[in-house]
Amino acid sequence: MKSYNKQDFPVSEIRRFLEPGPIVLVSSKHRGRTNIMTMGWHMVMEFSPALIGCLISSGNHSHSMIRDSGECVINIPELPMAATAAKIGNCSGADNDKFKKFKLTAQDSAEVGAPLIRECYANLECRLRDDALIDRYNVFIFEVIKAHAPARPKYPKTIHYYGEGMFMVSGRSLNLRRYFRPGML
Amino acid sequence: MKSYNKQDFPVSEIRRFLEPGPIVLVSSKHRGRTNIMTMGWHMVMEFSPALIGCLISSGNHSHSMIRDSGECVINIPELPMAATAAKIGNCSGADNDKFKKFKLTAQDSAEVGAPLIRECYANLECRLRDDALIDRYNVFIFEVIKAHAPARPKYPKTIHYYGEGMFMVSGRSLNLRRYFRPGML
Repeated sequence: MKSYNKQDFPVSEIRRFLEPGPIVLVSSKHRGRTNIMTMGWHMVMEFSPALIGCLISSGNHSHSMIRDSGECVINIPELPMAATAAKIGNCSGADNDKFKKFKLTAQDSAEVGAPLIRECYANLECRLRDDALIDRYNVFIFEVIKAHAPARPKYPKTIHYYGEGMFMVSGRSLNLRRYFRPGML
Repeated sequence: MKSYNKQDFPVSEIRRFLEPGPIVLVSSKHRGRTNIMTMGWHMVMEFSPALIGCLISSGNHSHSMIRDSGECVINIPELPMAATAAKIGNCSGADNDKFKKFKLTAQDSAEVGAPLIRECYANLECRLRDDALIDRYNVFIFEVIKAHAPARPKYPKTIHYYGEGMFMVSGRSLNLRRYFRPGML
């Protein structure tokens, strides 16, 4: 697995990692047990506070763990972890210790009880900010309270899900700054 | 501009276009006027009904048009439209007829009053299904009631936003079906 030299990353800038729409690995801890799920349904909601909306189906073992603990870490995997991410999404935390099963390193977070996954490019420590939409839509609104990412590469090689077991790998960068008004940058 | 031979596309399968996280163009019509905005903050919420959550800031001219008309079309642009999408996001519908300004074709939708953008790869006709989150979060929950997409290519060459005027172009496909349980496909 790749290793990264991570630093504190400004939480107001985490859209760089989430807005392109990659699958992420959500790690949680509740009553001494940890879990990891693969998630593709999420969106940025605000820069500051750094809010994100995530859909975590009630069928997932992580759903109640995150709801009850009020915390999780959103981890951004890069391409070398694609198969691991797919496998994590195809087994349940009810039957598996996923950190152990997939040989991932549970590292202590700075602000939350849930561990971060060291092998991922970036780690976003999240606190459940609003649970009002969970019953109706399974939507959790989190505030990212601490973020860790390497200074380089600036843009991770992310994995995006099409459905049907098919993924897209992030491609080249495109600079369109010349079309932006200064206030939009 | 590219042209596409579009067909009806099953609304329960539109995650193929949205879950990878591209920027989209949202077209709307209210009181005889049309508008287009570029949007990057959205997520799939349910297969059937086909629900999607979208954040449309109240600072956008489209916000009230979509809220008041209760409809819009979410259009998926491909790479050749990247500069156009950036420019659309950097001017306001209050001062511009964006279809005219950007030489885009407003085509009649089948089910909603908002026009679809013919030059886009796919068009998702949407009805506002739940407006309860608009005041608090600017989040619109839409149901896709009709979708149009070409049979080929199966996966569009989409554009994803990093912020700061920088975009990512969708890269290669990756087949990881072998790691999926049958019920997950």
